[in-house]
Amino acid sequence: MSKYVYSFGASGSEGKSSDKNLLGGKGANLAEMCKLHIPVPAGFSITTTCCVEYFKDGSKFPPGLKAEVEAAMVKVEKEMGMGFGDAANPLLVSCRSGARQSMPGMMDTVLNIGICAKTIPGLIAKTKNERFVYDSYRRLIMMYSDVVMEKAEGVEPKEGRGIRVQLEEIMHEMKQKKGCASDTDLKAEDLKALCEKFKERVRKALGKPFPDDAREQLWGGIAGVFKSWNGKRAISYRRIENIPDEWGTATNVQAMVFGNMGDTSATGVAFTRNPATGDSRFFGEWLVNAQGEDVVAGTRTPNPINDATKNDQNSSMLSLEKAMPAVYKQLAGIRDALEAHFHDMQDIEFTIQEGKLYMLQTRTGKRTGTAALNMAMDMLEEGLIDAKTAVMRVKPAQLDELLHPIVGKDAEKTGKVLVKGLPAGPGGACGAVVFTAAEACKQVAAGKQVILVREETNPEDVEGMRVASGILTARGGMTSHAALVARGWGKCCIVGAGAMHVNASKKELVVDGQKIKEGDLLTLNGSRGIVYVGQLTLVDATTNPRFQAFMQMADKFRTMGVRANADTAEDARRARQFGAEGIGLFRTEHMFYGKGSEEPLFLLRKMILSNTQAERVAVLKKLFHFTKSDIKAALAAMDGLPVTIRLLDPPLHEFVPKSLAKQKELALSLGITPREVQQRGELLHENNPMMGHRGVRLGVTYPEVTEMQLRAIFEAAAELLKSGKSCHPEIMIPVTCDVSELKHQRLLCEKVHAEVCASKGLESIPHSYGTMIEIPRAALLADRMAKEVSFFSFGTNDLTQMTFGFSRDDIGGFMPDYLKQKLLPADPFATIDQDGVGQLVKMSVEKGRSTHPGLKCGICGEQGGDPESVRFCFKTGLNYVSCSPFRVPIARLAAAQAAIQG
Amino acid sequence: MSKYVYSFGASGSEGKSSDKNLLGGKGANLAEMCKLHIPVPAGFSITTTCCVEYFKDGSKFPPGLKAEVEAAMVKVEKEMGMGFGDAANPLLVSCRSGARQSMPGMMDTVLNIGICAKTIPGLIAKTKNERFVYDSYRRLIMMYSDVVMEKAEGVEPKEGRGIRVQLEEIMHEMKQKKGCASDTDLKAEDLKALCEKFKERVRKALGKPFPDDAREQLWGGIAGVFKSWNGKRAISYRRIENIPDEWGTATNVQAMVFGNMGDTSATGVAFTRNPATGDSRFFGEWLVNAQGEDVVAGTRTPNPINDATKNDQNSSMLSLEKAMPAVYKQLAGIRDALEAHFHDMQDIEFTIQEGKLYMLQTRTGKRTGTAALNMAMDMLEEGLIDAKTAVMRVKPAQLDELLHPIVGKDAEKTGKVLVKGLPAGPGGACGAVVFTAAEACKQVAAGKQVILVREETNPEDVEGMRVASGILTARGGMTSHAALVARGWGKCCIVGAGAMHVNASKKELVVDGQKIKEGDLLTLNGSRGIVYVGQLTLVDATTNPRFQAFMQMADKFRTMGVRANADTAEDARRARQFGAEGIGLFRTEHMFYGKGSEEPLFLLRKMILSNTQAERVAVLKKLFHFTKSDIKAALAAMDGLPVTIRLLDPPLHEFVPKSLAKQKELALSLGITPREVQQRGELLHENNPMMGHRGVRLGVTYPEVTEMQLRAIFEAAAELLKSGKSCHPEIMIPVTCDVSELKHQRLLCEKVHAEVCASKGLESIPHSYGTMIEIPRAALLADRMAKEVSFFSFGTNDLTQMTFGFSRDDIGGFMPDYLKQKLLPADPFATIDQDGVGQLVKMSVEKGRSTHPGLKCGICGEQGGDPESVRFCFKTGLNYVSCSPFRVPIARLAAAQAAIQG
Repeated sequence: MSKYVYSFGASGSEGKSSDKNLLGGKGANLAEMCKLHIPVPAGFSITTTCCVEYFKDGSKFPPGLKAEVEAAMVKVEKEMGMGFGDAANPLLVSCRSGARQSMPGMMDTVLNIGICAKTIPGLIAKTKNERFVYDSYRRLIMMYSDVVMEKAEGVEPKEGRGIRVQLEEIMHEMKQKKGCASDTDLKAEDLKALCEKFKERVRKALGKPFPDDAREQLWGGIAGVFKSWNGKRAISYRRIENIPDEWGTATNVQAMVFGNMGDTSATGVAFTRNPATGDSRFFGEWLVNAQGEDVVAGTRTPNPINDATKNDQNSSMLSLEKAMPAVYKQLAGIRDALEAHFHDMQDIEFTIQEGKLYMLQTRTGKRTGTAALNMAMDMLEEGLIDAKTAVMRVKPAQLDELLHPIVGKDAEKTGKVLVKGLPAGPGGACGAVVFTAAEACKQVAAGKQVILVREETNPEDVEGMRVASGILTARGGMTSHAALVARGWGKCCIVGAGAMHVNASKKELVVDGQKIKEGDLLTLNGSRGIVYVGQLTLVDATTNPRFQAFMQMADKFRTMGVRANADTAEDARRARQFGAEGIGLFRTEHMFYGKGSEEPLFLLRKMILSNTQAERVAVLKKLFHFTKSDIKAALAAMDGLPVTIRLLDPPLHEFVPKSLAKQKELALSLGITPREVQQRGELLHENNPMMGHRGVRLGVTYPEVTEMQLRAIFEAAAELLKSGKSCHPEIMIPVTCDVSELKHQRLLCEKVHAEVCASKGLESIPHSYGTMIEIPRAALLADRMAKEVSFFSFGTNDLTQMTFGFSRDDIGGFMPDYLKQKLLPADPFATIDQDGVGQLVKMSVEKGRSTHPGLKCGICGEQGGDPESVRFCFKTGLNYVSCSPFRVPIARLAAAQAAIQG
Repeated sequence: MSKYVYSFGASGSEGKSSDKNLLGGKGANLAEMCKLHIPVPAGFSITTTCCVEYFKDGSKFPPGLKAEVEAAMVKVEKEMGMGFGDAANPLLVSCRSGARQSMPGMMDTVLNIGICAKTIPGLIAKTKNERFVYDSYRRLIMMYSDVVMEKAEGVEPKEGRGIRVQLEEIMHEMKQKKGCASDTDLKAEDLKALCEKFKERVRKALGKPFPDDAREQLWGGIAGVFKSWNGKRAISYRRIENIPDEWGTATNVQAMVFGNMGDTSATGVAFTRNPATGDSRFFGEWLVNAQGEDVVAGTRTPNPINDATKNDQNSSMLSLEKAMPAVYKQLAGIRDALEAHFHDMQDIEFTIQEGKLYMLQTRTGKRTGTAALNMAMDMLEEGLIDAKTAVMRVKPAQLDELLHPIVGKDAEKTGKVLVKGLPAGPGGACGAVVFTAAEACKQVAAGKQVILVREETNPEDVEGMRVASGILTARGGMTSHAALVARGWGKCCIVGAGAMHVNASKKELVVDGQKIKEGDLLTLNGSRGIVYVGQLTLVDATTNPRFQAFMQMADKFRTMGVRANADTAEDARRARQFGAEGIGLFRTEHMFYGKGSEEPLFLLRKMILSNTQAERVAVLKKLFHFTKSDIKAALAAMDGLPVTIRLLDPPLHEFVPKSLAKQKELALSLGITPREVQQRGELLHENNPMMGHRGVRLGVTYPEVTEMQLRAIFEAAAELLKSGKSCHPEIMIPVTCDVSELKHQRLLCEKVHAEVCASKGLESIPHSYGTMIEIPRAALLADRMAKEVSFFSFGTNDLTQMTFGFSRDDIGGFMPDYLKQKLLPADPFATIDQDGVGQLVKMSVEKGRSTHPGLKCGICGEQGGDPESVRFCFKTGLNYVSCSPFRVPIARLAAAQAAIQG
């Protein structure tokens, strides 16, 4: 029989830090802290395995659990010197969730379990604090009725008003009646009466009485925590973070300690270093006479933990360092011990009960990309970690925020400040104000950028927060759950902007009488906590020298090349700055998209609508010069690095002019009627252009088009070579499905190469000849294809389209359902589908190299910049990945980490 | 060193009948006849290997050939008792092509080689027939100047008028001048003068003199035959017949014998049985005092070989049987010997020189499908062949003509006869008259059916003949080249309709003053040789009991199942008649294509444009009844045989009404505005619908649609079962790409099955659950997919689209170039691409059966009826193929042959 219960406490632990899969992160680390002789209230963890069995068996506890829990409870009672349900000396316990991977605020907790008619007198006698006892009792009723009696038992709230909201209203009425400003102003008798009202409402609203038995409460709490694994918020969070549903959560049952037993009691949350900036000073918040949830829920603005890390918002508040110097010193010592032990920044929770410090949690802290990078470099310098570890410490995706814009310094000087708050997530963001998560999702789906503004951040908002460009709240501290979540995503976020009044129902916010309505633009500086009215310029943030140093360190471990997809000389230069080692995809189509002269587009249209080869050849002669200068500029910008030039793959019908004026102009130039231009255009219409007359198929039917481009490439290269520069064009044939196409185009290539060499007086022009692998058949025939080429470049965008039969433009109708119902684990256009598309890539590499050892293989689809896809490419033995310039550093880091992981 | 030359003659042969690859069909069989002591003029074959080397080396004869040819010539001279180039007793030879596989009339021949100034006097002295000598000489000049001096040496004819045409004109003028009706009326001195004129024109037109040396003529003739392998006609024919370019042709050099030495000389062509009907009597044509080409070229209407096989056209002409009874008897004996030796019908050529019979060729004769079938059954009965051989004797594609329509007997009674001709190709055909091959191709490409009408059939017309529904010529016999070709394709064809005058330049034909213009309709009865004016009803031809017996014999060898793709109960019944063992693809979309009530289409449109699930469910309830009755009828028609029902895969956007009236009707019914109908329709627009929201993707987003269909299937089956019938629906999920989709739909299937069982009071309804494999990813994940299903059905249409990235609708722009330039060996939508698509099919079967032994696998793409694809399916281990009802017998035969071949 499995062991389901693991005890921990001052007298020792059955678990340890490495037992996270079994005990969850919280339980494993509580056990580990006990081993380190850090003060932790005694308790026990019920395993994730137990949770899984609980669900497997239709929400029933597995046999044997009861006996194990009872035995573990005896140990807790012994260590704490109290009895659970004992009338004279009652022990209270908490039930908290704890999954393998932290899911902050996404599951439920029940505190103060064990308060009932039988234990209340003893508790009052023991604490000599009737107010505290009834305050604890009303908290128990609120939490328990919500988590266990309503949610876990699946009671549908009437008119959407859950029991928690109803109880809060009752409390609000009581406060008004008694003229109390704060909860703490309520007296013992008020709270006692409140508890009675609560129980009455619970019975009425939920149809059964609040349980008045400690053990009944305990088992309800355990079940409630288990069931919260399948709550709406938890499922939503797991979907975003790709956490498997099968993991389940552990439940930690732990002796209660109280931060709300008067002014020598307190509770707090801290990070061993600043999670937003990486600053290496101890950083945190605390509240006197409060329970932990008060800090975390963001309902009161908390005090700073020490003087050194105060900010604009809390500079006048008392720090723990000043208020309780001895406890602070002990806590700072624990901070050092934890960092030394875990070699990483920790996110801790503590409670001080009547001057005695208890640690309730430690875990590796979430951090922004900036913080991750700074901490990695600091800890490396401190000797806490080695270079490999430092490289592994930054998630590739986190670099994104370092590469993304911040509010320009000059813009800030002239910008109109609306309000200030806490700098909870770094970087800059600009967008239209929305007041609900649903509206945020809707606007973003419509292509807008939004700032989600909320009175206080709320775990139900997870999806809206994810899509928003920035998040702004009126309440909450740096450690409020939503701030944590935003930071985890590297999202620009400002919390606790107290001067702001949010009226979501009126869709407006007011600061000092100034109204901002839904749709108005705001700009956030998340690094400084400042909100500006209107749209401010955002600028590049990549000049950080530490970033450069970090990337150089990562490059030392990297073995796979990283190139960029770039269509212009300008892109090529930027890619080089970001560390690209070549261009993996240069699309000559770029010049037709009207950034410079309109002439290339006009010529392309003319070529497309030409009826005869003679007409086409005449136009191609003119187009040649544009193509050549475009290619020459890119080759020059990369100065000696390889540049993979894809031959034209224009979607012909898209280039047929729609406007009558353009049609007339073209007709005049072609010497035909506008009607004929239309007719020729109609002939080009295709039902499924993605699988139509494109890529090499054009090169076969119109070899003169291929020849023009080859001539442009070779002449550009020849001229650079003759001017003493170095260059290496790689000629890439798109959309191939058979080796015969490669032979066909290769003959043209050899012919033009010979002609240009002759005309330029060169013996040869260094180049290589290769193909995209983007059609499934090309992958299936890779052994034959490889014999004709020097390289394969996987066009995973098209390969994904054909392999799935998904037109990327048309997935809107079903992809949301596929992802929601988990029919697919991820959008295959964002992350390579390793099972299917990946199988083809792997097969191609293996088959290709079986007939052509040393065949160069790369990827140039958009997934080239996705960290998971980069790992896949490394494992598959690709020589390089190529992605958009902005994602080059991400790919470099992902490749380095893949190499370290082996 | 290779041996390039193989001698044959009365004294023995170096080659034999099985040496076809080396010596070509003609050479190998000449050698074989010699071994059988059948009289054959002595000669030798120059191998196909030599031809290949000739081209490899830039059209140069390989070293050593000259010596071998000289040595072989010595043998010929010895046997024939004459000397090549000898002035006193000159030997003349022919050079004829002969490839592995017969390519009738597609390559060139040069006769009478060896006539020159030096040999003419000796020839005249020996033959005592000056006229004959000059007639032979003018023939040599015509052939040689055309084949060797113009075509082989690549001289481009001026204004498209080749030397042959020019010489014919000169001869025509001479005949007019002399008042001669026929070539034979020209006297010796006329012919002598003609030869001088010919040589003069040759020198002028081709810039060099006609060679006056026997050996120069010989080597020119050999080269000319080799080069004709790469002539336009030959290449075109090889493309149609899939004959590899690499094979090359042999050249047969053989002593000339003359059928044109007077009235005791003759030449003829015969079949050992009737190639059009299979009738087992000796059948052929002959001409007195003529050379072989006169029969074959169709310039004179030939005599019947015997009285028993006379027809309407030649009933009054003298048969060989009557004219030369002894020779006929000898020939009939040879006929029997050849059939006994080769166990198959032979196509023979013979020449009678002054009463002495020589065989010039024997080969397996081409035949119509009807003839192939009749001969196979006859020879089986005669004990000439066994059942396996009989089954192998009919090409599956030939069955096509047996399954295709013939002119209805009643229609013929009332039809207006235009003209009669020879029944050269069986069956009926109806179409618009065209007068050129080019016009035939153009009209057919535009979707029309045409009858190609020509004065005489001509090898240059090959492509036009191929696309035409029927062929009609004014001249030529049953063995003219073009009639042979048409028959090889099982094409309806009438030749030698002498009463018809064709004026191609005026685009009209005239019979007794009645004009038929281009575009007018004609109907041909190719089995009887009758041409009718206008369009006559064509009827089914499958009632032949011999056909039934043949198919039953084939089925005894067949191991793979054959099913039909059928969308209606009517199709299902027809498929059963044709021997289908089930329905492999039943598409419920059929009912929306408006054959019956318009209501289903209206309801489908309504469903597609519904905005809410409630709207959809309401419509689905109505649609359910149509679906159910449709399915029930098909299940009933197949009575116990399996019926694979594909769930809906409608191309949504196609069903949005285009007409305003329909839009209004729909709007009214949906309670919305017509503008809204348009807008909802626009929302459904997809850029690449082939890869859009279709198949199971609809079943995922609209599970209620799947449920409706499942309910229809189960209720239909339940009701049939309860009425005592047997049925087995196989539910097939289309367009799947992941196992999750199969799980998703399976849950619905199980749910609906349970509901219907409960409501109908049945314990269970027999059915199976399977999937199309038509998306490459499904094939790649076949091991996982197989665990969820009972069967795979390969949708090779879509699989081909996705694997190649070819949209079937859009290949028109490039596929012709791909086929012409041989970038692809065949249209992959007609014949399975074994390299790519086939690789996926094979992989799927192997992977699928690795996790699900005994998984049933079939194919339901259109290639299921293509014989080569059927062979592939057999080799790959599929359980069945499914194709259109009309192709079921073809698939049955192809599967039987595949099983026999192993």
